[in-house]
Parts: sequence; C-alpha cells; structure tokens
Amino acid sequence: MIPPGRSLKDVILGHPLPTQLEKSQRLDTLRALATLSPDALSSIAYANQEIYLGLASAGAAALVYSVPIAGVIVLLLIILTLSYSQTISAYPRGGGSYTVARENIGTNAGLIAASALLVDYILVAAVSLTAGVAELVSAFPVLASWRVELALLFLIIITWINLRGLQETGSLISIPVYLFIISMLMMLTYAGIRFFNGSLLPAASTFKPEHSAAAVGIGLLLHTFASGCTALTGIEAISNGIGIFKPPEVKHARQAMVGVATLMTILFLGTIAVGQLLGITPVPGETVLSALSRQILGDGFFYILVQVSLLAILIVAANTSFAGFPRVASILARDGFLPHQFANLGDRLVYSNGLLFLSGIAAVLIVAFHGDSHSLIPLFAVGVFLAFTLSQAGMIVHWYHDRNSGWWLKAAVNGTGAIMTAAAFVIIAVSKFLDGAWIVGLLIPLTALSFRRVHRHYETLDQELAVFEQPAAPAPMSTPRVVLPIAGVHRGVQTALQYALSISCQVTAVYVEIDPEQTEKVLQLWQRWGSGVPLEVVPSPYRSLVGPFLAFLDQFDESHDDGQLATVILPEVIPARWWENLLHNQAAWMLKLALLYRRRRYGKVRAIIDMPVYLQGSGHKHKL
Amino acid sequence: MIPPGRSLKDVILGHPLPTQLEKSQRLDTLRALATLSPDALSSIAYANQEIYLGLASAGAAALVYSVPIAGVIVLLLIILTLSYSQTISAYPRGGGSYTVARENIGTNAGLIAASALLVDYILVAAVSLTAGVAELVSAFPVLASWRVELALLFLIIITWINLRGLQETGSLISIPVYLFIISMLMMLTYAGIRFFNGSLLPAASTFKPEHSAAAVGIGLLLHTFASGCTALTGIEAISNGIGIFKPPEVKHARQAMVGVATLMTILFLGTIAVGQLLGITPVPGETVLSALSRQILGDGFFYILVQVSLLAILIVAANTSFAGFPRVASILARDGFLPHQFANLGDRLVYSNGLLFLSGIAAVLIVAFHGDSHSLIPLFAVGVFLAFTLSQAGMIVHWYHDRNSGWWLKAAVNGTGAIMTAAAFVIIAVSKFLDGAWIVGLLIPLTALSFRRVHRHYETLDQELAVFEQPAAPAPMSTPRVVLPIAGVHRGVQTALQYALSISCQVTAVYVEIDPEQTEKVLQLWQRWGSGVPLEVVPSPYRSLVGPFLAFLDQFDESHDDGQLATVILPEVIPARWWENLLHNQAAWMLKLALLYRRRRYGKVRAIIDMPVYLQGSGHKHKL
Repeated sequence: MIPPGRSLKDVILGHPLPTQLEKSQRLDTLRALATLSPDALSSIAYANQEIYLGLASAGAAALVYSVPIAGVIVLLLIILTLSYSQTISAYPRGGGSYTVARENIGTNAGLIAASALLVDYILVAAVSLTAGVAELVSAFPVLASWRVELALLFLIIITWINLRGLQETGSLISIPVYLFIISMLMMLTYAGIRFFNGSLLPAASTFKPEHSAAAVGIGLLLHTFASGCTALTGIEAISNGIGIFKPPEVKHARQAMVGVATLMTILFLGTIAVGQLLGITPVPGETVLSALSRQILGDGFFYILVQVSLLAILIVAANTSFAGFPRVASILARDGFLPHQFANLGDRLVYSNGLLFLSGIAAVLIVAFHGDSHSLIPLFAVGVFLAFTLSQAGMIVHWYHDRNSGWWLKAAVNGTGAIMTAAAFVIIAVSKFLDGAWIVGLLIPLTALSFRRVHRHYETLDQELAVFEQPAAPAPMSTPRVVLPIAGVHRGVQTALQYALSISCQVTAVYVEIDPEQTEKVLQLWQRWGSGVPLEVVPSPYRSLVGPFLAFLDQFDESHDDGQLATVILPEVIPARWWENLLHNQAAWMLKLALLYRRRRYGKVRAIIDMPVYLQGSGHKHKL
Repeated sequence: MIPPGRSLKDVILGHPLPTQLEKSQRLDTLRALATLSPDALSSIAYANQEIYLGLASAGAAALVYSVPIAGVIVLLLIILTLSYSQTISAYPRGGGSYTVARENIGTNAGLIAASALLVDYILVAAVSLTAGVAELVSAFPVLASWRVELALLFLIIITWINLRGLQETGSLISIPVYLFIISMLMMLTYAGIRFFNGSLLPAASTFKPEHSAAAVGIGLLLHTFASGCTALTGIEAISNGIGIFKPPEVKHARQAMVGVATLMTILFLGTIAVGQLLGITPVPGETVLSALSRQILGDGFFYILVQVSLLAILIVAANTSFAGFPRVASILARDGFLPHQFANLGDRLVYSNGLLFLSGIAAVLIVAFHGDSHSLIPLFAVGVFLAFTLSQAGMIVHWYHDRNSGWWLKAAVNGTGAIMTAAAFVIIAVSKFLDGAWIVGLLIPLTALSFRRVHRHYETLDQELAVFEQPAAPAPMSTPRVVLPIAGVHRGVQTALQYALSISCQVTAVYVEIDPEQTEKVLQLWQRWGSGVPLEVVPSPYRSLVGPFLAFLDQFDESHDDGQLATVILPEVIPARWWENLLHNQAAWMLKLALLYRRRRYGKVRAIIDMPVYLQGSGHKHKL
C-alpha cells in the first residue's frame, strides 16, 4: 500500500531532497571509509585466487612464490599510498587521475585516464559481484548453477540502495565492511595462535614440496604478478571521492587512506602467508579463501560467517563503483565530455543517470562472461594501472610547476610511483593481452575519442547558439502565414481553425486526398464550417499523407517568398485512455516528426503548432 | 545496389501503386484458386497425420477406423460446400462468416464469428508452416533441430511476398499449388495401378490386424474425428475472398468452390484409403504422408518431389491466411471494430498493417509451441467450426427473411450444415479442451469483447468531434497570451521570442531555476536580449523542470481568467546528427508530452508551439 500523498517512486526511492541539503549529506570518516574502502579491501579475495591459480598451473611446488609476489605487490601498495596522500593534499576538491592528468599533462592524457577509470569502475562492479558469488557458492555448492542470476540480483539491490542516496548508503554499508574486517582479523589471529601452539597442521599432501622451485619460469611469475596486481584496484577511490568526507576533507581523507593501506597489507599478506604455511589446495568450484577458512575454522558456523562476510564485502565493493563512477562521469559531463544528463543531480541528490548506466553495463558483462570473475580479471588491471601511471606522472609535473620547498622530494615520491606503476602496467598489458586485455586496450582509446566528439558537439552548439553577435533588438518578424492540414471536418479542426485565425489573417486549409471518395463530402462540410478560409485539395495517388503534404508546403512557401516559412497547425486528438491511442493513426505525430527532422533549410525556421483536442471517452458526458 | 530514383523500400517491396489500379489487381479463376485453396487442400497433410496418431495410440488394429472417419469428414465437406455455395450467391461482395452472422443473427454473433475467424487465420499460418517443415524434416532428418528457424524463415518469405502485393502473390503461388495437385494425383494413380497389378504389397508387419477392432472406445473415435476435422479448415476462404475474383465474381467463386471440394475429397480419401491398404506405419520423426509416398515411390527423386510439393503447398497454405486475415481485418476496421489502421491500403495496394500483425503473432506461436504442429492442432479446429456454425445459422435466417420460391430448400441445406457443424464443434471443443482448446475458448470471447470496446471508442469519438451542433461562425478567439520557457539565453530562444512577439503582444518568459547559481547570469542576459519581455523566475528546490513549470502555468492561467489558456512556445534544438540527440536532455519533448497528456481541462484548449532550431554540426560553417 502506498501511503497517501506519496507516489510509488517516492516509496521505492525515498522522498525528493532539496538542493540545499547537499552539504549535509557528507559522511564522517568511518562511514566514508566504509563507502570508499571496500573495493581495495575486498580485492584480496580475487587477487589471492589469481595468484593461487597462476602458480598452481606450474604445480604445487610453485606456490612457494606466492609470498614473494605478495611482498612486491605490498611494496607497490605502500608507494601508491604515499603518492595518493600527496595527491589528496594537492587536490583537495577531488577528481583523481582525470583531474591530475588533465591539468598537468594535457587534455588527451586526462581523457585517457578518465576513460580508463570509467571502464575500471564498471569492471570493479562486475568482478566484485561475481567473486562474491564465488565465495557464496564455495560455501553452498548447491547454488552453483545460479551464479549469473545471483550476481544480477545483488547488482539490482546495490543499484536500488544507491538510487536512494548517499547518506543511507553509508549507514547500510558500514555493517558488512566492519564485519569483514573483524572476522578476517580474528581468523588470522586464531590461525596464528593455533599454528604456533601446534594444533593447526599443514595439509599433509602438499606440505614440503619436493620439486625444485627453479622449474618455474619468469614468464609465469610475471603473469601471476600481473594477476595479483588486481589487489591494488580501488586504492585511488579515496582521492577521487574526497568530496564525500566531512570537512576538513583533506585530513579525513589522508587518515582514511593510511587506514585502508594498513588493513590491506595485513589482510593480503596475512592470508597469503597463512595459506602458504598450511599448504592450502582448494577443490574445484571452491575459492582459495574458502579453502583457507575451512581448514582453519572447520565446516561450522564461523566458516559460514567468514564466507558470508566475504560475500558482503565484495558486494559492497561493487558499491565503490556506484560511489565513484557517477561522480567521475558528472565531472566529465560538467567539462562537456559526457552528455549533460550525467551532471544532473537526481531527486535524491545522487547522479541517477550515471548510476543506471553503470548498472546496465555491469549487467551485460556479468551475463556475457557467465558470471565468472576469473575470465573478467584479464580485462581488469590494465586500466587501473594506466590511470595510476598517468596520475603519478601528472603529479611530478604538478610539483615541478609548484617548486615550493622540498618539491623535489614530493616529485621523487610520485616519480617512483609513476615508474613502478608504469612497469606494472606494461607487465599486465603484455602478459594478459590475449586473455582479454586487448578488449580494454581498444575500449579505452575509443571511449576517449568519443569524449572528444561529445566535447566538439557542445562547443559547436555554444558557438551556433551564441547571442553575443546578434543585435539586441532584431527586426520584428511579420505575422506568419498558417497552414492547417485536415483529414475531415470535426470539432478539433474547428478549434484549430479558430486559433489560427486568432494569430494570423492568412490561413489556408489543406486536405490530402487519400481516399478520393471522401473529397466531395469534405468540401461540402468545409463550405459550411470553414469560416471562409480557402481549402486546398492535394491529390495523393499512393495514399500517403506526409509526402504530398510536404510537397504542397514547399510549393506554398516558394509562392510566398517573404523569407519566412509558413507555420503549420496540427489538430491532434488525445484519447481519454492510453490504449485508445492505438486506435488512431497518429497522423499528427507523423507530420510533426517529418517537419521537425527534415533538415533542409538551416536559415529558416518553421513553427509547428500542436492543437490538442481532448476526448472524454465513453464514461463521461460530452462537454467539449 | 539501389537504382537511382528508387528507395530501398521500393526495391524490397516494389514501387508504390496508384489507387485506381485496385480493380485491375483482380485474379482469374485459376490464379484465385491458387491463392484461396491451398489451406483447404494442404490440410490433408496434418489431418491425415492427426487421424493416424489418434488411432495408432490404441494400437495398429484401430487404424481400420481411418477410412470410416475420413468418410464422415468428407460428408461434412460436401454439406459445407453446398452451404457455402449458397452463401456466395447470397453475399456476392464477400465477408464470410462475420458478415453473414452479423447481418442475420446480430452484432454479437458476428463479432464472435469474426474473432473465431481471425484467431484461426493465425493458427492456419502457424500450423501450415510447422506441418510443412515436418514434411521437409521427414525427407531430410538432418534438419530436425532447425524446425523453429525453418518455419520462421518461411514465414518471413511469405510476409515479404505478400507485402509486394496480390498480383505477384497469385503468379508465384500457382506453381507450387499445381505441382502439389499433379504430383499427389499421379502418386495415387500410380499406387492404384501397382496395387491392382500386384506389384505393391502392404507392409508385412501390420497387414491384416489380428486384434479385435471392437476394443477401440467411442471416446477415442470422437477425439480422432475432432482432430481429423482440421481437414476442413480453409474451405470458407473462397466465400470470404470473393473480392479477388475477376467479374463475374459469383460464378467464378462457385466454380472454384466446387473444384476445391472435389480435389480435397479425392486427395483426402485417396491418401487415407491407400495408407490403410498398405498398412503404413511411419518411424518416429516421419509424417504419415512421407511414409506413404516413400512406400509407393521408394527413396528416390519422385519421393523427394512429393515431399517438396507437400512443403510448398503447406507454405502456400499459410498464404491463405495472408490473403484472408488482412481482408477480414479491414472489413472489421471499416465497421469500426478494429483500429482504422487495418483498413488502410498500403503503398502496394495490400493491407500492410494486417499482414504484419498476422505475421508477428504467427511467429510468436511458432516459437512458443517449438515449431510442432501436433501441439498447435488442439487450438485449431474449435474456432473454425464455431465460425462455420454461426455462418450456417445466419444463412437460415437469411433465407427465412428472403422467402423467395424454394427458400425452404436452401434453408434446409444450410440447416443441415449448421446442425452438422454445431455437432462437430461440440465434439471438438469437449474432446480437445484440456489439450489446448481452452486457450482459444478464452481468446475468442476476449477478442470479441475488445472489438466492442474499440467500437465504443470510435462511436464516442464521432459524437465528441461532430460539428453539426456547432455554430457555423463561432465567436472569434482573442489573441493568445504566450509563455516561453527558457533554460538560458541563446539564438533559439531569441528566434522563439521574435516569433511569439509576431503573433501576440502578451509574451512572458519563464526561467525554471534548476541551478540557482545560473539565475543571475540568465537575468543579466535577458536584460540585454529579452526585447523588453518580462522574465519570471520559478524556483525548483528538487531540480525538476516539468512540475514547477506546470504549476506556474496553472497559476498564470488563473490570474488571467479570460476563458483561454496561454499558448506555450518551446524552442527545441535539433542536432545535425542523430546520435547528438543523446547529448541533449530533451527538455522540450518532456514539456511537450507533459502538456499534451495532462488531461485536466476538457473544456479548454492549450496550443503548443514547437520552434525547432537546427544545428549544422561541426562539419559546417555557421550560417544560422
């Protein structure tokens, strides 16, 4: 039941919020952290999985490399954290890679960074949801055949929550984020205690590998490193999203940044190391984190709790995209690189168009890749590291222009970041190219190109529509000639005729003779009810309306060459019920569209007057 | 390549034909027969199949009943032929069951008959195509998994041929029809000769059944009879389609009627009897006619020829619907029971809307029933026999009103027909109810009801729009007030403003304040370029456009209570390329739709003026 005074839309999405509430929608640090961190934190789920799958393909012995690879990735994480902390200070109004690259390197670099970011936001949503479903399916294998449907269901729920607005998103999301952090930390602590008091032993089958570790090639290690780099996705979310922190934004955002990086290091290194110690080998259809927690916690309540918290954090991670994508899209839209619609705040002070666009594309990806995160991963890290590199490179330029005291130190930090992320980018792009990275390699430049096309359109628009060169008091237009096409003589026609006579003394009616048997009757009726206005009969041997009418109109305009085109007035019958529209041939609409979209005479303008005639339908007495 | 001066549509569908060609599109008897008979003739394919399947379910012994059942059906056929020959004489302008039932029994009976007819035309198309594909698959089992796709392919081809127009349909169709008739007659003759000279022997396995025929229940026999009655579908097509015969239409139509009935009797009884003599038992996936011709002709060229001619006649049978459905729909549309669009002759003098509607629904049926004619059959004969019964009953009334000499003899012929078809109708409806007849049992009354709703709409429309009670010279309207909503100040707004000033001296501009930061700028620009017209600023706390504007408009109208509503003029930017429309928020369209479909004030009329402003796009120099 919908309460009185509220529409269905209000009930589903919440009451509209007035514009001045926008500032008060800001979040405190803990809630902002919950909104912006889950992507970074949860990426340990699929990064662990990819490192495991990558190394395991060379045999169980190769798994000894998981800890060193994780170490390199954590090193990258630390450098990125330092780099982005500097970005937050330098760009307190947010905007991330796009803003930094555009302002410091140039528009093209900015657009490439922006399209990389947008593509990756979409992939975060798709990968996180499918990875979350994989954790769920590990615990409940009976759900295995519903992967795609489950991922789509969670996508719909997130979209709905986000359409309701930021405040409520933050509140709802804090719970699973902190549940995840606490349950993971407790599991790792418990594993450590049990390991050191000897009650937790490695799985016998894979303990102490006999094979020589030297057998693993450098290609495989780089490929695995590339996959593991997905752990770093989401780390830039905070510098893009400074705008949602309560003031002082910079301080809160930097605190959040350090907090996220610390937690990630603990969880990522911790799970990899414990997994390595215990010699985890999951069964097919099970994730490596599920195998890990099952071995530590057994099959009971706590195992299910960890899996559910993994699912929850991954679902919430998809939410990072829902916070980030619409925001970046709205910045691009304000700069004229995306349709203005993306810049419109919706009823509930969220960028609804960006949300819906993101949700639609993510759904397509989930379906197209059969809900399998492992096949989506190769598309993933390329764009992230491209954006990282462009952003860091931009920061070097920024500090160089700045040249305050100690600028070279800051430039050196970002320089290290740029070199490291560029190296990772090249490794990822090359080693994942055939697995799917080529798709993103095509998509990012194409997206950037279309940003330019859109921008060109808006620029041309502004030029074409500018009034500044126009005279402030143009010569007045003369009263228009009016043409009234009729299909018969009825009250609607009569109303339109009277209206036409009220604005002009040059009115001409036109009857297109689709059915010549009717012509005589129409002429007779016009004789009596036509108010003395001339009626032209236009033959139509092929029974079409639009062509003959337009031909008449052109000829009519030519024979009155006063530089203005005749106004067309269209009587349009509007039935009382929607389905009754199907019973009318929509001649008025057809004529209107033909007149509007006939792009011939740029120099001249033809006004089209709609004259709606409302029907009451059979339920009412006639009072028209 | 499209020849110069012809559009793509012309190439696909043929040049438009002028109206006066309509009469010359009439067909001679042989070609009219080819257009109207295939449904009747080809129905032996599925009727034979259904009789075989029905009896075989009680064991091979039951097949001895096939000839008696076929005999009863032929008896029905003879009665129907006599009945419909009388109908043709009495109704030389065609119209069939609908016209006869409506004129003699009443509108409701006519509408029931009409909806039964329309439903059955659709089923004929679906059943014939799927049965044709079954014959093809019997000869080429490798195609078995493409049933649905093949049926849809043939449907598309028929639709295309029919959209090109009647003349060409008749020419193309004669070939397969006469190929079918000749090949079937030759096969039966050859079988007869071989049988009587002893070179063709029954299949050993089923010859001389040992089981007692008495074991077959009456229920099964009635059920089989009901299925077999599908043989009679299509027999009424000629009386519906008299209009396509060359004059004298009645004579030609009656000749065609007798010709069709004779051929049907020979082919139906012949195939059943020969099948019975030879003890035909098809393998799964093969039709009974395929098994029959394979046994008579072997596996070679002539067998393939017969199967292809069966496929061809069944495809062409679907064409009977394409001749009949749009014609009946157009009669209904002219009488105001279906949307007028069904009465419009298209470019090529065919009822294109009816054709496309029929084609769409048939496609849905083919897909929904997995291309299997056997599951469509239970839906089929109910409607046909309902229409038969109503038509015959109507004829009795007709002769009674007529009461010329010998009227009672004619009434007796139609009376016999009515009783027989009513009995068959009851048998079919009861025995097939659960198999699917209930769907049609629901659909026919619902369709008839919607005919009435449509009719009521058109009646109300005529009353509401009638001018006859109106004064011939109504009081002139006063010059309208004009309201111009603006989102900024640009050339389009300026053009609209000048136009508004040319038709009225009371112009008011309105700025809906979606982004309050812009208001000051807009006010300043208006100061300079607003031609002295007042600008109202309307606040919009929830950032929506339509609501606040409409509220302003209502208030504006109330404050000027001269009985007229203000005219709204909408500047509308039309981009140079279609995709650029995506870059505009379509505010003009939203306002236009909101204004058009706000159904509040029946008594008053608001004109809406579209002021298109064409953009040239970046490729052109600006000359706006």
